[in-house]
Amino acid sequence: MTIAMNNNILKIDLDSEKFVEEALDDEIFEKYLGGRGLGVKILCDSLSKGTNALSKENPLIFSIGPVTGSAVPTSGRFSLVTKSPLTNTIFHSNSGGFWGPYFKRTGYDCLLITGKLSDVGYIVINDYDNIEIKSAEDLWGLRTTETVEKIQSLEGKISQVLCIGPAGENLVKISAIMNQAHRAFGRGGVGAVMGSKNLKAIVIKPGKKDFPINDKDHLKKLRIVAIDKIRVVPVTSQGLALFGTAALVKVINQFGMFPVKNFQSAYTDSEKIDSISGERLRKEFLEKNEGCYNCIIRCGRFTNTGEKSGKGPEYESLWSLGPSTGTFDLKIITHANYLCNDLGLDTISTGSTIACAMELQQKGLIKDNNLKFGNKDKLYEIIESIALKKGIGTELAEGSLKFSQKYNAESYAMQVKGMELPAYDPRGAFGHALNYAVSSRGACHLTGFLVALEILGSPKKIDRFSVRGKSDLLFLKQNQSAVEDSLIVCKFVGYALGFEFQARFLSTISDKKISITDLITIGERIYNLERLFNVREGFSRKDDTLPKRFLETPLNEGPSKNRVVPLEDLLNEYYNVRHWDENGIPTDELLEKLSLKRLI
Amino acid sequence: MTIAMNNNILKIDLDSEKFVEEALDDEIFEKYLGGRGLGVKILCDSLSKGTNALSKENPLIFSIGPVTGSAVPTSGRFSLVTKSPLTNTIFHSNSGGFWGPYFKRTGYDCLLITGKLSDVGYIVINDYDNIEIKSAEDLWGLRTTETVEKIQSLEGKISQVLCIGPAGENLVKISAIMNQAHRAFGRGGVGAVMGSKNLKAIVIKPGKKDFPINDKDHLKKLRIVAIDKIRVVPVTSQGLALFGTAALVKVINQFGMFPVKNFQSAYTDSEKIDSISGERLRKEFLEKNEGCYNCIIRCGRFTNTGEKSGKGPEYESLWSLGPSTGTFDLKIITHANYLCNDLGLDTISTGSTIACAMELQQKGLIKDNNLKFGNKDKLYEIIESIALKKGIGTELAEGSLKFSQKYNAESYAMQVKGMELPAYDPRGAFGHALNYAVSSRGACHLTGFLVALEILGSPKKIDRFSVRGKSDLLFLKQNQSAVEDSLIVCKFVGYALGFEFQARFLSTISDKKISITDLITIGERIYNLERLFNVREGFSRKDDTLPKRFLETPLNEGPSKNRVVPLEDLLNEYYNVRHWDENGIPTDELLEKLSLKRLI
Repeated sequence: MTIAMNNNILKIDLDSEKFVEEALDDEIFEKYLGGRGLGVKILCDSLSKGTNALSKENPLIFSIGPVTGSAVPTSGRFSLVTKSPLTNTIFHSNSGGFWGPYFKRTGYDCLLITGKLSDVGYIVINDYDNIEIKSAEDLWGLRTTETVEKIQSLEGKISQVLCIGPAGENLVKISAIMNQAHRAFGRGGVGAVMGSKNLKAIVIKPGKKDFPINDKDHLKKLRIVAIDKIRVVPVTSQGLALFGTAALVKVINQFGMFPVKNFQSAYTDSEKIDSISGERLRKEFLEKNEGCYNCIIRCGRFTNTGEKSGKGPEYESLWSLGPSTGTFDLKIITHANYLCNDLGLDTISTGSTIACAMELQQKGLIKDNNLKFGNKDKLYEIIESIALKKGIGTELAEGSLKFSQKYNAESYAMQVKGMELPAYDPRGAFGHALNYAVSSRGACHLTGFLVALEILGSPKKIDRFSVRGKSDLLFLKQNQSAVEDSLIVCKFVGYALGFEFQARFLSTISDKKISITDLITIGERIYNLERLFNVREGFSRKDDTLPKRFLETPLNEGPSKNRVVPLEDLLNEYYNVRHWDENGIPTDELLEKLSLKRLI
Repeated sequence: MTIAMNNNILKIDLDSEKFVEEALDDEIFEKYLGGRGLGVKILCDSLSKGTNALSKENPLIFSIGPVTGSAVPTSGRFSLVTKSPLTNTIFHSNSGGFWGPYFKRTGYDCLLITGKLSDVGYIVINDYDNIEIKSAEDLWGLRTTETVEKIQSLEGKISQVLCIGPAGENLVKISAIMNQAHRAFGRGGVGAVMGSKNLKAIVIKPGKKDFPINDKDHLKKLRIVAIDKIRVVPVTSQGLALFGTAALVKVINQFGMFPVKNFQSAYTDSEKIDSISGERLRKEFLEKNEGCYNCIIRCGRFTNTGEKSGKGPEYESLWSLGPSTGTFDLKIITHANYLCNDLGLDTISTGSTIACAMELQQKGLIKDNNLKFGNKDKLYEIIESIALKKGIGTELAEGSLKFSQKYNAESYAMQVKGMELPAYDPRGAFGHALNYAVSSRGACHLTGFLVALEILGSPKKIDRFSVRGKSDLLFLKQNQSAVEDSLIVCKFVGYALGFEFQARFLSTISDKKISITDLITIGERIYNLERLFNVREGFSRKDDTLPKRFLETPLNEGPSKNRVVPLEDLLNEYYNVRHWDENGIPTDELLEKLSLKRLI
């Protein structure tokens, strides 16, 4: 099958500082597409049960997909799969920009890194079969902005740089891998996996290799159709460019789902909310927009507060560093976001772990007065202490679950499987809540974003408080997301293009007619293989849960008040739809249908 | 404004056999677009009150629109406006094929024909300023197929021919003008208007003149987007090509709206309905599809019954010549359809007038045993007698209203303002019923096809039996139809392209940004100008009605049983929405808003 891939994996062993290239069979693309699917398959095939996520054996697997670097809109994304030191689950993440398309043109589909450098270093992929490992002695300890600058001065302005900041170096469990210093493989502590390998950065220069597209003429036409749709739909043509993801601040608050002070409330009066809205961000701080490779949505934003400049914040970061910690000062939030990026910290988990600590302080379980809700003056200091593992930062660096357990106060950690919840109170959207509980990477908003249907009404508004039918929709959304992450395209394009467009694009790029149903099945396969990984690691129904707060304590004001998440009902229906047994384990019949085997 | 028009009208006076060209101002296009709007405006400006439709003074006005002959899909249509001898209302009609695009390229937007030839003749438009009037001595009396053949042998195979058959020559009030012998300006007796001018045919050869398109590149892209939509939507990509309009037979019957025996019932058992369905037509008679200029839908069909071959039948013709007269024999219906085309008869009014006569026979009001429901052996003979005005045909040639009045049996004539109802029982869809009552050209399914919403669910299914809200939808649909007829595009494309596409196309072709709202207002202007014409002729609320049957006698079987049309309620709401007074006359405020003046 022509599927616009290179059929080639680049394996770098940091122990020996050697690399090899290995062929990939068409079959793996037919079954897993690329990106997340490819990474998950390779990780499951290569990692033994119970491997420490920060050991040499845990690989970093970067991969691209069949549409990457093509004329398909938003085809600039690439994927990372590894085992997470925060959740101990399988972990996938993806990022935009230009690194992925550059990598594809060097002639590889996948970069698998194992081992550990004896001295700190960084990898340079100059082109096919031209890989170097260089010393990072002068880079170690640098923040991400400096790191990128320094590397680009050495390797050329055009180089694209993935790197970790001090947080990743210090094995902080909520550290990120930063992409050009402001995009992120944000969650799951993947920065620590890279840090554990003594690897500061992975640099790519644009390759020159072409890859096969089956029907270029038709792709051109389909692109025109797709671009037209993106230009016609208000969200993709205007909303995201004007206000970025921060447009959600007011929308989510309007539904009483915008969590404040570690999810103790979820509704804020309009004056206060206006002061941190995407609208205000645009009006006061926005300098210009930025887009990824082949994207006309251009949701990225260069901002300048008058004192400092940088990128973002995105909706989630704005929330976690702000209202979640009791702070409604947009300038401080924006600076805190710059700081997290620079230190290489996951903004969501950083803010939420701080918020957790603040609630412990509020409840009298810890004494540190710096950790008071709304204590914005100390925010930067606390963030730095996490990245540098100083003082209480050493404890916070483990994430909210481990932190709270130390104080016997686990119920104050707003996390699932160790990963902190993002900016949507689950008591206001039960399908979205269900996804938090069951997602293979912990409390995640990206793998089954039912907020789209329950709140935003895209493509159709559904009852956010109903149970019935949510599992069917989540099943589809999760499988669809797995496909989007494997092709790879940006999820935002889904607001303009129906999922059938991905089937049409893939049918054009490859020489095989691929239907929506084919894609949904591929997504189901990927999702279940992730589940099998987690099952082998000991995860089951007991872990598909939510913090007690969401199950027992209703909000007492706002449009989502008086509700708790009926999780057991949701789970029963969901397992049924997924063909998992009552303990959340995929059944034999399902595995046979998906041509999957249990992992040993 | 660049609006892709020639700004030029060709006026032919058949009395003097002279022609003149006159400039048209941009303003007329800005206010009326072209096609129907242009024709209506010109007719209203030029015709005196009470003019006999068959007098020399009544013009035939053929016109094209801004999209005609361009890259816009389905831009092959052109329009005719005249006063109808059947209804005595203003009358508009349009037809597809290639005549329109050829005409546009000769450098004219409009052809206005008045007067009467002293001897029978035909017009040849060779090119700009190269017009001939030739003798039709050898053509007069010929059927339309022969006429086209003979003219093409004289004028060249590439010539496009509008002509009348014996029916038009004989001033039959339900005669059509045929376009290449099988497409039709079907309704309103327009064939008789042409016949009254001693004009057998109007022949066009493809012009070479280009017309200005403001943004050709963008038009190209928009065309790709539009074609993609047409190819994606099942109705336009498959339904119409596979089964033609006859696909409606089973659908409309399923809703109990498929009239049988002059609307005495409207539901037929499935075996019988299958025998005359579009599916059977395809299976047994279809030879190949045919499309108009720049159309990929290709709903036209060459058929062959084994005995004869020709085109069609369309849904309406199949119904009127078949079940309406009590005949369910698809071969005979198909032959009858060929025959009507060849004689130049309106298939709908022909079948319905025969059905009316048959009900009179059933009720014992006339004695002619040939006119028995289901008497299929005599069908051809009756049809011929109408076209040739022989025997009872002389009476039938006046249409059902005049015919029934002769026997004091007007309530058996299924007509509004003299024009026969098409193939949808109004008791099953109240919005559609309302359009029959108010349409400016009598019982018409083309000017406000609410069956699309009430039955087909395109773009959305609505309650077919509700009154509330129907007027708002009809207001929009009527205005929109007036715009479609003025641009001109085919209405079928609306199943794939939202109306916003027409605004986008027009904004691309012209140098002016035109919104949907602008278009709806233009449509409203055209619709009201038609109303003003009719008001001057004496039409008012008393004429906005339906045959008593639909107001008083419910159907007694099928999915539409036990309903009558609540016409007064519908009308009250409709006049309100239209800003017409309680007598159906446009108010001063409305006219001012639309920059219209009452006609004197």
